[in-house]
Amino acid sequence: MNFPTGIGTSDADSISLLGHDLAHDLMGKVGFGELAFWLVAGRRPTPGETRVFEAVLVALADHGFTPTAIAARLTLLSAPESVQGALAAGLLGGGSRFLGVTEDAGRFLHELVEFSNGDDCWDNVALEAVREARAEKRLIPGLGHPVHKEEDPRTPVLFALAREEGVFGPHLALFEAIGRVHPEVLGRRLPLNGAGVCGAALADLGLPVDLLRGFALLARAAGLLGHLAEERRRPIGMDVYLTVDRNATYEP
Amino acid sequence: MNFPTGIGTSDADSISLLGHDLAHDLMGKVGFGELAFWLVAGRRPTPGETRVFEAVLVALADHGFTPTAIAARLTLLSAPESVQGALAAGLLGGGSRFLGVTEDAGRFLHELVEFSNGDDCWDNVALEAVREARAEKRLIPGLGHPVHKEEDPRTPVLFALAREEGVFGPHLALFEAIGRVHPEVLGRRLPLNGAGVCGAALADLGLPVDLLRGFALLARAAGLLGHLAEERRRPIGMDVYLTVDRNATYEP
Amino acid sequence: MNFPTGIGTSDADSISLLGHDLAHDLMGKVGFGELAFWLVAGRRPTPGETRVFEAVLVALADHGFTPTAIAARLTLLSAPESVQGALAAGLLGGGSRFLGVTEDAGRFLHELVEFSNGDDCWDNVALEAVREARAEKRLIPGLGHPVHKEEDPRTPVLFALAREEGVFGPHLALFEAIGRVHPEVLGRRLPLNGAGVCGAALADLGLPVDLLRGFALLARAAGLLGHLAEERRRPIGMDVYLTVDRNATYEP
Amino acid sequence: MNFPTGIGTSDADSISLLGHDLAHDLMGKVGFGELAFWLVAGRRPTPGETRVFEAVLVALADHGFTPTAIAARLTLLSAPESVQGALAAGLLGGGSRFLGVTEDAGRFLHELVEFSNGDDCWDNVALEAVREARAEKRLIPGLGHPVHKEEDPRTPVLFALAREEGVFGPHLALFEAIGRVHPEVLGRRLPLNGAGVCGAALADLGLPVDLLRGFALLARAAGLLGHLAEERRRPIGMDVYLTVDRNATYEP
Repeated sequence: MNFPTGIGTSDADSISLLGHDLAHDLMGKVGFGELAFWLVAGRRPTPGETRVFEAVLVALADHGFTPTAIAARLTLLSAPESVQGALAAGLLGGGSRFLGVTEDAGRFLHELVEFSNGDDCWDNVALEAVREARAEKRLIPGLGHPVHKEEDPRTPVLFALAREEGVFGPHLALFEAIGRVHPEVLGRRLPLNGAGVCGAALADLGLPVDLLRGFALLARAAGLLGHLAEERRRPIGMDVYLTVDRNATYEP
Repeated sequence: MNFPTGIGTSDADSISLLGHDLAHDLMGKVGFGELAFWLVAGRRPTPGETRVFEAVLVALADHGFTPTAIAARLTLLSAPESVQGALAAGLLGGGSRFLGVTEDAGRFLHELVEFSNGDDCWDNVALEAVREARAEKRLIPGLGHPVHKEEDPRTPVLFALAREEGVFGPHLALFEAIGRVHPEVLGRRLPLNGAGVCGAALADLGLPVDLLRGFALLARAAGLLGHLAEERRRPIGMDVYLTVDRNATYEP
Repeated sequence: MNFPTGIGTSDADSISLLGHDLAHDLMGKVGFGELAFWLVAGRRPTPGETRVFEAVLVALADHGFTPTAIAARLTLLSAPESVQGALAAGLLGGGSRFLGVTEDAGRFLHELVEFSNGDDCWDNVALEAVREARAEKRLIPGLGHPVHKEEDPRTPVLFALAREEGVFGPHLALFEAIGRVHPEVLGRRLPLNGAGVCGAALADLGLPVDLLRGFALLARAAGLLGHLAEERRRPIGMDVYLTVDRNATYEP
Repeated sequence: MNFPTGIGTSDADSISLLGHDLAHDLMGKVGFGELAFWLVAGRRPTPGETRVFEAVLVALADHGFTPTAIAARLTLLSAPESVQGALAAGLLGGGSRFLGVTEDAGRFLHELVEFSNGDDCWDNVALEAVREARAEKRLIPGLGHPVHKEEDPRTPVLFALAREEGVFGPHLALFEAIGRVHPEVLGRRLPLNGAGVCGAALADLGLPVDLLRGFALLARAAGLLGHLAEERRRPIGMDVYLTVDRNATYEP
């Protein structure tokens, strides 16, 4: 039984990663974000792709005291010797509700892009998609935000970056079109949120849409490390715990 | 009860990260590795520091079919709908044995650097430390490697990079000294391994030694995403499982 | 802000669990399985319900070298100091594929039971459900098994136990009916598998169908502890790792 | 390469667990707690051992809104589709601080019992151990409790249960002796806490002291399922999150 892999191998004298000599061809010569892209996509991104990709990771790295950041800090409080456990606990919240929009938006757009015949202008595709979603009482992934009710500040910045770097493709175009046309159907204007535009950008970079959540998780891993470092320097976990425990009331 | 944080906050119009406007000052202007450093250290690294830091992350991202990569792939096999669970399972192996050397080496060197009076040359500090470890039958973290018995190819590259970027400090100097003097005590030459030199470099960058494992975990998160993407494209998890299950023998 | 709970509270002199004095009313007087049922269902089970419930947990505790057991052992190999991490890694495989059938079957049967008018005999309900599934090319959860191709030995035993204890309800009845009628539609006889009959039994016990996976996880936690104890006494993790690593081949 | 195991195997017609026929010899005939003991210890416990063992699991199952219970609920809030992730996140807090006392106490007592010559009365062993700990400024695991300052109600109940079932052995005897003699050394009376007495009881049952944390985790798994079921019925996770997030203050 053989176990094939294109990722990493090593022997006594060398370590190979993605078919390249790790020490001599990669260390100091490839950035970390660039490598993460390469590992998943199986191809090295261009500098422009890397810049947009890293902008997405930066956009998704942290959202303050999210449930996942609080869970990671509480886990560090309970098991301070296991940084890996605290990080893992935080990442486990990276599911459908607080971290899934990126993948949901990318997948939603991808299906529409795949099935569009290429002749249609994106506004028409968008209009039909919003109408269909409305008829089926489904939400459009990436549309609306509980805090940024007018505009999510990340959205125009990422559109501009992708244009600047020449990687503005059909997913971003369709997402932008949804932003233009949805008020006609829904009767009010909702913002295109940051998680959604990140999903569109990742899909335009050719990354696999069924793994977009993985990049949100990688980005969040950096944010969680920031929280864990801060928890060590200036802890709030015990206060969170006591706030809940002292205000607990017994109700059968 | 207030919960102070210096990481991220947001209001209706803006998102702030590390005291900067996320959309306008960070996205497209700070790299992902740079941001991870900043989040943990609380200060923005210089370009030279960033280059060495990212070289460390690249060095630690993957080691082929490690137990952690296999565990992540088996978890994806069992629960393919939960990428976060598979990633978390892989990171949970980031403990003392297969991923802890980076932190152990950084911490070991840090204690010696802290307690050295600054006048001693590093060879003397190293000699004494190796003698003491030998007398107490303790291993020196970062010394020796099961595969790279002569030289770990990552080690000289990271020494050179740190020198080139002007961030070669006392931890790397002491680690290098250990490489010079240990044969005098141990009677044979062992290689300075890559995980160890990474720990030394991270400590020289001023990162908190009790969180060095966190950077190994961040690096490994990228490698694990690569394995999960490959598992989706060309799975080996089922073969691993069947190889074990079909060769299981009942022994009370 | 209050945080209501009906589970546990304590003060200086007493600890209360589920509204009872933990030390004096529960310790030594309630079994562990019984307590787990009570915690989730919010009511104490009868002795007969407890017996069937514990039989389900026993049935689901282990399946030998499953991917989850192997993942737990590999994680212990990498991070031997963190039993909680190894256990968590194993449980994270408790998803749709290898541990989800119990919940899927319970939920599938529950929807049919809920929407049946109560007059129909279960064979008719079953026949219609199997026909519909076949027409939509969906699998019936709980039907078929990769190893036990004729009969899963757990199934008749759990049917008999539930009858003996007077807790054989509509979910088990409908599941049994599916076992009788499906060959008429599918043209061949498949076994009712153990995970499926466990889901049916848990649903008949009135446990919430959206948490049935939780009981499979609790059962598996005991099995995984057994694997971790055995891994400490007679390890196989290193051999699994080396078997994979030594047979790795580089293929881009 | 063979992979030996004494836990579970199966073939087309039968499933074997611990060398017994799962369906015919175990389901309905062995309790769940009994099986968990058997899986780890490799021997079936007596009814008296089972009663004390299950009393320990009941004692450790829940402590209200602990950091681990809150982390599990927050994770379910973020990723409601992944019960296994929420459970795993909760268990990952089962480390040194909030769940480790059971193992620490068992291990501490076990070392003293192993090295005592058998002639000494336990009060003398206890006195020496407390003096030594005091001299080295170490805490005695299992002594003292932040809430139950006079007496932990679980402690006398477990002593009595172990005596009643004839499994009161040297670990419990030594722990009881520590309760008697420590005021002579420390100058004040501290309670013997419940986690400590559970560790002593598990050690007297002959369970491996390096896996006692595993039983605390198994017990806690049941408690966490209770919290997750309650979170589904009457959620508090969102309120915890908003309480923290709305009281967040930016401090560099």
